[in-house]
Amino acid sequence: MTQNIYDDDAFFAGYSRLPRSVEGLDGAPEWPALRALLPDLRGKRVLDLGCGFGWFCRFAREQGAAAVLGLDVSDKMLARARAETSDPAVQYEHADLDSVALPDEIFDLAYSALALHYLVHLDRLVANIARALTPGGRFIFSAEHPLFTAPSRPGWMEAAGGKIWPLDRYLDEGPRVTDWLAPGVVKQHRTIATYLNLLIGAGFRIDHVEEWGPTPEQIAAHPEWAVERDRPPFLLIAATRA
Amino acid sequence: MTQNIYDDDAFFAGYSRLPRSVEGLDGAPEWPALRALLPDLRGKRVLDLGCGFGWFCRFAREQGAAAVLGLDVSDKMLARARAETSDPAVQYEHADLDSVALPDEIFDLAYSALALHYLVHLDRLVANIARALTPGGRFIFSAEHPLFTAPSRPGWMEAAGGKIWPLDRYLDEGPRVTDWLAPGVVKQHRTIATYLNLLIGAGFRIDHVEEWGPTPEQIAAHPEWAVERDRPPFLLIAATRA
Repeated sequence: MTQNIYDDDAFFAGYSRLPRSVEGLDGAPEWPALRALLPDLRGKRVLDLGCGFGWFCRFAREQGAAAVLGLDVSDKMLARARAETSDPAVQYEHADLDSVALPDEIFDLAYSALALHYLVHLDRLVANIARALTPGGRFIFSAEHPLFTAPSRPGWMEAAGGKIWPLDRYLDEGPRVTDWLAPGVVKQHRTIATYLNLLIGAGFRIDHVEEWGPTPEQIAAHPEWAVERDRPPFLLIAATRA
Repeated sequence: MTQNIYDDDAFFAGYSRLPRSVEGLDGAPEWPALRALLPDLRGKRVLDLGCGFGWFCRFAREQGAAAVLGLDVSDKMLARARAETSDPAVQYEHADLDSVALPDEIFDLAYSALALHYLVHLDRLVANIARALTPGGRFIFSAEHPLFTAPSRPGWMEAAGGKIWPLDRYLDEGPRVTDWLAPGVVKQHRTIATYLNLLIGAGFRIDHVEEWGPTPEQIAAHPEWAVERDRPPFLLIAATRA
């Protein structure tokens, strides 16, 4: 079963202080790249898997989406999402993405930001999403990059010649326990190939893959981000239900 | 311009002693995985990009291919390929894959094993291959995995807790100079995303992606290969011209 770390008090407090929690979508450095993959949202029925505080759900409505459903396993996040949304076309529901049942052929876009790497049964969810999308519907998501999740000792190391990312266990898929905002956060490591083959196997066509790193402009503004180009932190994928 | 290191005397001598040069396809540990991606070859017109000693060209004919064209930039390799092939349906031609012009819609399968990571103008070649394939034609290839080519100091490092692969420069695409069989071998590092997006942009549908590592059976036979699962050495991709 997928861990619900977002309802842990210490984790939630820490997460709530991150730029992406305070500033919303623009506080996430990968947002411009993810946004660039989105279709025109006007009139679309949108599903947000792991909606958190509801930033994307509200954005989708601002862009003209007809209806938005945000799902999240964290009651604390849903409470804030509901408190900050006054729009009857945006609904929030509690759901464990590992076991949620979605209705058939009802959404035009399924979106997910940094949630899928927590799921134990991603295969099930992807098949579920394929059924929940209308033909030609899009699935666009970000996840922690497999290079970020793989190592047994994730963290930059000083080596002769400069910092390195100590890669190991890349092909060894499964749980990784790290201390991020709280001790004992469990993520599920999967390779890029597994993400892609899961999508293809569920009937998706791969439209675009991005291994995200900061742009020169972002590095100029945040020089400490430069090292992220040595090991991309995020994987972005856009796919279409065939 | 792409370096033609295979015609370097020292490199050629070293390459000729590798298991894959002595034993042929079965001397390459990734061959079973690559073979599993191939379609039925009976009656097919096959193009081998970087055919080397011609092992795959002869294999394709054994499997019933109607005609096979092997291209390589190395005259030394082509000389041996021709000497070891007595089959009028297999042709070998000298070609620099970075600038070769292929005829339109003539092949059912384009195949390439461990050649594309040498090419400077891969975008051009991929567009070329898309045109050279019949509609529904397949493009199946292996290349050195981007994790293998990325680092400034490629090679396992001892660290507290075990061996690590010192990753850096992953998003920094371009030439990498290494000493493998001969000094100063130039490869072109590209990310997985770039391989995939090049294919998609040229009109290919991605069918399967494999980040190859040794199987448990292979590790039982060659325990020293186990470490390759920490950082996959090969990337295998199967695509179809839409």
